[in-house]
Amino acid sequence: MSEAADVPGVSDGSDPSDVLALDSLLTANELAVRERIRDFTEQRIKPGIARWYEDAVFPLEVVPELGELGVLGMHLEGYGCPGRSAVEYGLAAMELEAGDSGIRTFVSVQGSLAMTAIHKWGSEEQRQEWLPRMAAGELIGCFALTEPTAGSDPSSISTFARRDGPGDDAGWVLDGAKRWIGFASVAGVMVVWARTDDGVRGFLVPAGTPGVRATPIAQKLSMRASIQCDVVFDAVRLGPEALLPGARGLRGPFTCLNEARYGIAWGAMGAARDSYQAALNYSQDRLQFGKPLAGYQLTQEKLVNMLLEIQKGTMLAIHLGRLKGARKLQPEQISLGKLNNVREAIAIAREARSILGGNGITLDYSPLRHAANLESVRTYEGTDEVHTLVLGKHITGIGAFR
Amino acid sequence: MSEAADVPGVSDGSDPSDVLALDSLLTANELAVRERIRDFTEQRIKPGIARWYEDAVFPLEVVPELGELGVLGMHLEGYGCPGRSAVEYGLAAMELEAGDSGIRTFVSVQGSLAMTAIHKWGSEEQRQEWLPRMAAGELIGCFALTEPTAGSDPSSISTFARRDGPGDDAGWVLDGAKRWIGFASVAGVMVVWARTDDGVRGFLVPAGTPGVRATPIAQKLSMRASIQCDVVFDAVRLGPEALLPGARGLRGPFTCLNEARYGIAWGAMGAARDSYQAALNYSQDRLQFGKPLAGYQLTQEKLVNMLLEIQKGTMLAIHLGRLKGARKLQPEQISLGKLNNVREAIAIAREARSILGGNGITLDYSPLRHAANLESVRTYEGTDEVHTLVLGKHITGIGAFR
Amino acid sequence: MSEAADVPGVSDGSDPSDVLALDSLLTANELAVRERIRDFTEQRIKPGIARWYEDAVFPLEVVPELGELGVLGMHLEGYGCPGRSAVEYGLAAMELEAGDSGIRTFVSVQGSLAMTAIHKWGSEEQRQEWLPRMAAGELIGCFALTEPTAGSDPSSISTFARRDGPGDDAGWVLDGAKRWIGFASVAGVMVVWARTDDGVRGFLVPAGTPGVRATPIAQKLSMRASIQCDVVFDAVRLGPEALLPGARGLRGPFTCLNEARYGIAWGAMGAARDSYQAALNYSQDRLQFGKPLAGYQLTQEKLVNMLLEIQKGTMLAIHLGRLKGARKLQPEQISLGKLNNVREAIAIAREARSILGGNGITLDYSPLRHAANLESVRTYEGTDEVHTLVLGKHITGIGAFR
Amino acid sequence: MSEAADVPGVSDGSDPSDVLALDSLLTANELAVRERIRDFTEQRIKPGIARWYEDAVFPLEVVPELGELGVLGMHLEGYGCPGRSAVEYGLAAMELEAGDSGIRTFVSVQGSLAMTAIHKWGSEEQRQEWLPRMAAGELIGCFALTEPTAGSDPSSISTFARRDGPGDDAGWVLDGAKRWIGFASVAGVMVVWARTDDGVRGFLVPAGTPGVRATPIAQKLSMRASIQCDVVFDAVRLGPEALLPGARGLRGPFTCLNEARYGIAWGAMGAARDSYQAALNYSQDRLQFGKPLAGYQLTQEKLVNMLLEIQKGTMLAIHLGRLKGARKLQPEQISLGKLNNVREAIAIAREARSILGGNGITLDYSPLRHAANLESVRTYEGTDEVHTLVLGKHITGIGAFR
Repeated sequence: MSEAADVPGVSDGSDPSDVLALDSLLTANELAVRERIRDFTEQRIKPGIARWYEDAVFPLEVVPELGELGVLGMHLEGYGCPGRSAVEYGLAAMELEAGDSGIRTFVSVQGSLAMTAIHKWGSEEQRQEWLPRMAAGELIGCFALTEPTAGSDPSSISTFARRDGPGDDAGWVLDGAKRWIGFASVAGVMVVWARTDDGVRGFLVPAGTPGVRATPIAQKLSMRASIQCDVVFDAVRLGPEALLPGARGLRGPFTCLNEARYGIAWGAMGAARDSYQAALNYSQDRLQFGKPLAGYQLTQEKLVNMLLEIQKGTMLAIHLGRLKGARKLQPEQISLGKLNNVREAIAIAREARSILGGNGITLDYSPLRHAANLESVRTYEGTDEVHTLVLGKHITGIGAFR
Repeated sequence: MSEAADVPGVSDGSDPSDVLALDSLLTANELAVRERIRDFTEQRIKPGIARWYEDAVFPLEVVPELGELGVLGMHLEGYGCPGRSAVEYGLAAMELEAGDSGIRTFVSVQGSLAMTAIHKWGSEEQRQEWLPRMAAGELIGCFALTEPTAGSDPSSISTFARRDGPGDDAGWVLDGAKRWIGFASVAGVMVVWARTDDGVRGFLVPAGTPGVRATPIAQKLSMRASIQCDVVFDAVRLGPEALLPGARGLRGPFTCLNEARYGIAWGAMGAARDSYQAALNYSQDRLQFGKPLAGYQLTQEKLVNMLLEIQKGTMLAIHLGRLKGARKLQPEQISLGKLNNVREAIAIAREARSILGGNGITLDYSPLRHAANLESVRTYEGTDEVHTLVLGKHITGIGAFR
Repeated sequence: MSEAADVPGVSDGSDPSDVLALDSLLTANELAVRERIRDFTEQRIKPGIARWYEDAVFPLEVVPELGELGVLGMHLEGYGCPGRSAVEYGLAAMELEAGDSGIRTFVSVQGSLAMTAIHKWGSEEQRQEWLPRMAAGELIGCFALTEPTAGSDPSSISTFARRDGPGDDAGWVLDGAKRWIGFASVAGVMVVWARTDDGVRGFLVPAGTPGVRATPIAQKLSMRASIQCDVVFDAVRLGPEALLPGARGLRGPFTCLNEARYGIAWGAMGAARDSYQAALNYSQDRLQFGKPLAGYQLTQEKLVNMLLEIQKGTMLAIHLGRLKGARKLQPEQISLGKLNNVREAIAIAREARSILGGNGITLDYSPLRHAANLESVRTYEGTDEVHTLVLGKHITGIGAFR
Repeated sequence: MSEAADVPGVSDGSDPSDVLALDSLLTANELAVRERIRDFTEQRIKPGIARWYEDAVFPLEVVPELGELGVLGMHLEGYGCPGRSAVEYGLAAMELEAGDSGIRTFVSVQGSLAMTAIHKWGSEEQRQEWLPRMAAGELIGCFALTEPTAGSDPSSISTFARRDGPGDDAGWVLDGAKRWIGFASVAGVMVVWARTDDGVRGFLVPAGTPGVRATPIAQKLSMRASIQCDVVFDAVRLGPEALLPGARGLRGPFTCLNEARYGIAWGAMGAARDSYQAALNYSQDRLQFGKPLAGYQLTQEKLVNMLLEIQKGTMLAIHLGRLKGARKLQPEQISLGKLNNVREAIAIAREARSILGGNGITLDYSPLRHAANLESVRTYEGTDEVHTLVLGKHITGIGAFR
């Protein structure tokens, strides 16, 4: 913490929205990373987001820039990955989601899901083949686990990979369907989880493999600057080298999901903070009955409660980051972080919107977009109900899932 | 109430979602009106709404059909208007908003605002000129009161109409700007409220009048199947016959706003009910861990609380309708109805969305669209805060607006 | 409704707290009943309640006065019972609970539970023996169903009555324990529900029967001006005439519970209204920074939301009363009324307390007492969870109790 | 933090209710202090609290034991005070309030208010005269600021001290009334804040001074095991040495209030944790439909949300403690902590109670007592509204108090 003291003007409480001086919990390096990514968001995401969102376009041109920024596979070591700390990764997620959840989602899918799967469960050859280009943003990865009929229950997946002949050096034939697969239609490589005779295994499926069809889900009211796909695998033939050797069973994808959830707990607070800031600014500028909106008790009540939850959620994220840095972070802790921070973020974004009056329904202001995006974030990687029951089992010792 | 008994299968409690048997409070005629409009919504609105919403298009082709359906100026007498009761009008608003708030908004703007202004404050010539075509849906009207810098405070409007010469038979020159004016860009006639040397007055401005420019507000995240415009009046010359003779001061537009708010209190419950129904249906069909979602305690808790508020809000709307039918409805009562029913509707739509999982973020399901629309509904015709303070003054005797 | 129009000053909206003019839904007779009981509460309950509550004393001296007032077995016909309508009974519950939930609870236990059981399931001899004295308040009845280990699940009761010899004219021997039995220690007769070889049956146990021991539960933080007892039945010998002939199975006690729940839905709104009124009065009298508390936005927001829920809950109670009067009231409707009105009442009482500042923690003001009492009311006759799941089953068709 | 690693079984996540492993943020010394005070609470407070509460008795016999325990003036240096750290003081407040808010309140009044006032603003003689006996629990101090008509607005106090003669060595005559003065009737010395010709000043008034009359406020529904008094000063003559030389203006008492609020932010989480634990234990023991209550989704949802807020509130308290330890703690930060932690604690205690069924209304279980106590805690030292507006001004720059 001593480093932080050297950063002028940051941790001295001069920012009235950092009431708790949480910046004083961050090192100078961490603050520097945050500034860099905040700048990127201001300059590269915010100016274009309204148009991308309206047009339902994911800005592919931003991908290599994210690579250059060092946020793809940010927490991984080697193979061209940045190797940053857990808190730095979290801060990056926060700043990017202050821009748009769709952008942070891309970074999560690329780094926490696809790259982590390859890094952790892949062979040396697989790592070398895919990770450097993915870290650079030259190639997009996706992560195909969820299926149309098994949203919150991955144990019921039915996509199946059977051996394409006898012996361990035989290839595979993959059949099944996935849904809500982020960026599948633009991915150069898919990490696909399928049932086999040997339990659930992961496969790397390069773009263009015959029999694979990824269709973006259209007419979305959330995450419009992002891509989620239906993917069909129709007798897809894969060589034996497609198999991720290190992962057996659901522990493989679950490890990746926990990485992603960790980032979400941070990211959601970025969307919340940006919503709050938009509402605060508007309320200070907008006159009502000759007085700024910010001067009314009903507005102050909203702003204070929003800020209070942002500060608590951010403190929680920092705490999770410190635990993760010390390799002590437990799945229940991540569940608590994801549950709380997304739930509070969505409430904050909605409340922020209410301060903006009619103007708040346009893309000129971020809160309603954030609120809409967070509907997706709330659902993926475990709904409120799933995380509640995970925690419920943890504290009572009794599972109530069924 | 005896009539209702004759309608088979309606008021016998056989609909589990009408727990309180509220249908028994409606007459056979009222139930018949409801059925007719519910059918229209099912056949003409629901099939097209996802496409209209995605494309941000208001379906102009539906306007004459609404005229034929008898919902334009529905509660007005004469001049081709249907002359239906307050409750019938309310039921129509409810059924149309079960389709989309944008369609109900059109009906409110046309009937409760524009036509009511002309019917109540217009000369005989004005009524005959405009109302029959508006009732038939051959001509669209709009209602220009709100200004860019005066959302919740109509008393501060600055659009000005000055006499275009001496004497009472002189015309007028209109200058100013309005914002959030529904359907202005497609309107054949605008009801414009402006300050004059003689206080606030209303004017009828036909489409095509030089100096009028209406620009649809783009990039909306709410009410995308509807139109709201910025309107500029730049030295617009109007003849003396443009003046609405009957309205002086803000009482003129306020009377119309109260008409519209009454319809909103009903309409919001339509959006809520449709959201609930979508969530109920989904939860009954969707299996999770081998059991319908509807069989889980956490889902039932949501459904029950949603339904409970729908029933209370509907009962409140019926009560307001009976008071209105008896010409006893007071502005505070409307404030209470608007405040409660829109606030609860938005909460219900959001909760419904959470039951739909990932699928709920697409336009295949209505709740997220309803929730987004209701952000506009919550704001226009008085925000929560405005109605809270109106009621606060009523019960305490002390104004706390400033 | 036409009668109401003749009552001057009631339904004209002159009471700012009856925003919705709900009084216009009541007949002149109903309003007169309400006035009479309101007066009683003002004169006989409110002056003594602080002392009774502090000292944990139920005012036995009030019981005959309640009989004279005509509220004991109020809705029953014959046998000295008043034979009033469902709405009149509801209004009485509301006015008495505006005094204290403990008083209304006494009236519920006496009339809706004990007297209803005897009236509905008793023999002619049993009715004539007990009902007239109970209606007059000369004798207290109680209703022993709940057991220590089976709060929300009456089907698991284990108190057992075995035949005290062969043949149908044999008496009974009763063994078991009950808990939370209102007024058992002061009751002249107990209605006891016990398992038999023939299913659940009801028994009338006169005071003083050997083997019966009723001990008031002490150190209560709720309902201190009331009595709830542990009751033990230790080889209690009863004659054959103790059996209630008409009731077989749980339908017997459940019918009575539904009567009581109906009254609770009304009564809770009485506690809520009294809390609101105390807060409103205080906020109008108490100056803060030189202005009445009632003049602040944060206070008005609370008052308005409280009143809004009171009005909705009261309208709901009236609706239930009309259904009951028409003999159409269904158990699910009562569940909805009890769930909503008690839940809202407790929220209102708590909010009211928060307006009273430090003074609100004393018995000089009613809201904290009401809030504490309503903890009991919320629990007995079905918790929020039980009623939620009852309604959940009704609307989804799937039971989720287990 | 490294110390914590040495404490076996504490920070390893083995306590399922410390989901976030917050104990790992505490040093071994801090954990040891906590254990010691937790033991005291278990052995000396919990066994007696039901009786004290029912009888409305403050256990005076506990006072010297608290002195021996080292929690009176715990954070002060010298004069017999323990000189413990901010976090240690906070942990003590938490553990004591897990017993009862009334006990923690006594410690706050004694240490944070009365002793801090003397320590900070007193002369050397005053310190030596009073502090050692107060630290030892041989003498009780109280702090008389609040007045009957000025709850949330100390700037309007009207108690007045006039010079009892000319010159600076003249004594004083004190007139006025105070309300809600904790422990005044048993205090050996009162710190009294009064208006003078020289602004607000503090005075030390020994017990028995003629003209002082302290009357305990009776018939309380909260803090019954504590004492709050009305105090009247009727021409009370004080010597010149009664004046606290160091304090001028409201900054004097405000400094003490901030000390107390800091302890409240910790203490409230103690009451919350104890409530949660009671509900968790009960839900694990109590069967419903043959399954522990803890195994139902609706119960788990409550428990999880309770625990989540406890963890966040505790983390917040630790953070405030670290800031205070570093002498960086700001009034706004304390406002945020007090506002959040008491508001959440009261919600948690209420929710815990709802899990306990009927049994939860007796003093056998702590949650309803905690909830009742927290009504006082929520009010004193700044209501929710006051702290909301303090923070609102901080973040918007605009005061909305009036």
